[in-house]
Amino acid sequence: MRPRFVLFGDSITQGSFSPNGGWGASLANKYCRQADVVLRGYSGYNTRWALFLLAKNFPEKSTHPPYLVTVFFGANDAVLLDSKDNSKHVPLEEYKSNLLKIVSHIKASNNAAHIILITPPPVSEEHLQIRAWENYGVPLSEPPSRRNETTEMYAKACIEASKEANVAIIDLWSSMQEQPGWQTKYLSDGLHLTPDGNSFVFEKLLEVLKAKGLCSEAMDFDFINFPQIDANDPLKSFIF
Amino acid sequence: MRPRFVLFGDSITQGSFSPNGGWGASLANKYCRQADVVLRGYSGYNTRWALFLLAKNFPEKSTHPPYLVTVFFGANDAVLLDSKDNSKHVPLEEYKSNLLKIVSHIKASNNAAHIILITPPPVSEEHLQIRAWENYGVPLSEPPSRRNETTEMYAKACIEASKEANVAIIDLWSSMQEQPGWQTKYLSDGLHLTPDGNSFVFEKLLEVLKAKGLCSEAMDFDFINFPQIDANDPLKSFIF
Repeated sequence: MRPRFVLFGDSITQGSFSPNGGWGASLANKYCRQADVVLRGYSGYNTRWALFLLAKNFPEKSTHPPYLVTVFFGANDAVLLDSKDNSKHVPLEEYKSNLLKIVSHIKASNNAAHIILITPPPVSEEHLQIRAWENYGVPLSEPPSRRNETTEMYAKACIEASKEANVAIIDLWSSMQEQPGWQTKYLSDGLHLTPDGNSFVFEKLLEVLKAKGLCSEAMDFDFINFPQIDANDPLKSFIF
Repeated sequence: MRPRFVLFGDSITQGSFSPNGGWGASLANKYCRQADVVLRGYSGYNTRWALFLLAKNFPEKSTHPPYLVTVFFGANDAVLLDSKDNSKHVPLEEYKSNLLKIVSHIKASNNAAHIILITPPPVSEEHLQIRAWENYGVPLSEPPSRRNETTEMYAKACIEASKEANVAIIDLWSSMQEQPGWQTKYLSDGLHLTPDGNSFVFEKLLEVLKAKGLCSEAMDFDFINFPQIDANDPLKSFIF
């Protein structure tokens, strides 16, 4: 059976198969004969609610547990308490503790699973406000639902969790901001990913996979490549 | 467990998660909280070789058999016998018989599985020749590897197989040619799909899914939608 790469997260994961280079679709394309990329993205979810999804998505006695899991939450946990959207807010310490519970649960389903934590991306407060005005008529004088300096604290907590749990990390919050114009180059509405933002996540993921020895070139191919099939005696190409 | 949509076919399936709107990725995006879209595309394969893939990909005693399967072969079976690529050629009658064997095997793994046969797309002989010259230096005076009137016979055999097996059909060969300029609008190299060609396959697939009562709007959502979660008592939203 093919290894399963499970993408677990919020809307940035749920939308990762969107046209125009979604990072999940790009991963499925790259590993098209090697791994099944399984989408477990839940728009609007924070880590507190994600805990309720673990038993069903990562059953402890699975006969085919995940080989690799990306855990990509925080954008909703970091919503500000004084925002209208504050039902999504999760306190910083609880966020970190929830991430550790998620990792622990996944390891219980397969102790050898490769786990990659991904920090929330940075947010562009200005564009969050513009989008809130355009979509919901929220006056531009209202503060944004998220602040970048708050999201930074959640990104740092995510990095701490990765160290404590000894799993890989992609620090999107920092690495995206190294690019001038990241606010619109990588983000479509101050929070979600543009095609360039999707490519950025995909490339960062490939870097981590390579470092783990899991680059596509190093993994087994599913069945023989067609030029190697002996057309006069194909059966022998399929005997394992 | 989420229903599984398995895409079984040749390179046009293997490449269906490519960036720029691959039809498989679009399907996964559309059903992102409802179904797992599983890629089983094998570049260069014909139906004769596909038979060797059935036992592993569609085990008879699966605890989680596919809910829906697209079977999309024929582009390689229809390669001309007098072409240099002729090891892929499968005689017309055998092609039809192999399709029926594939359908029969999938039904054995789950008699209720929704099966959709897809005919090979039309081929543009001129562009096949240009691509063979560009990629492999084949003189333009050489005949193309496939002829559209030959592929038509394979498309018709695929339609016959769908009727005999009482499964759904997408007649790509005919429907694509209804659009003027289909040769370059839908095909990138005379055979494989452009972004428009991918969109075309995706739309045809949605039409069949709708006719079967399987449109996204009619299917269950995976877990509760976040605005319905009671933030003060989330547990009750996750008790089944």
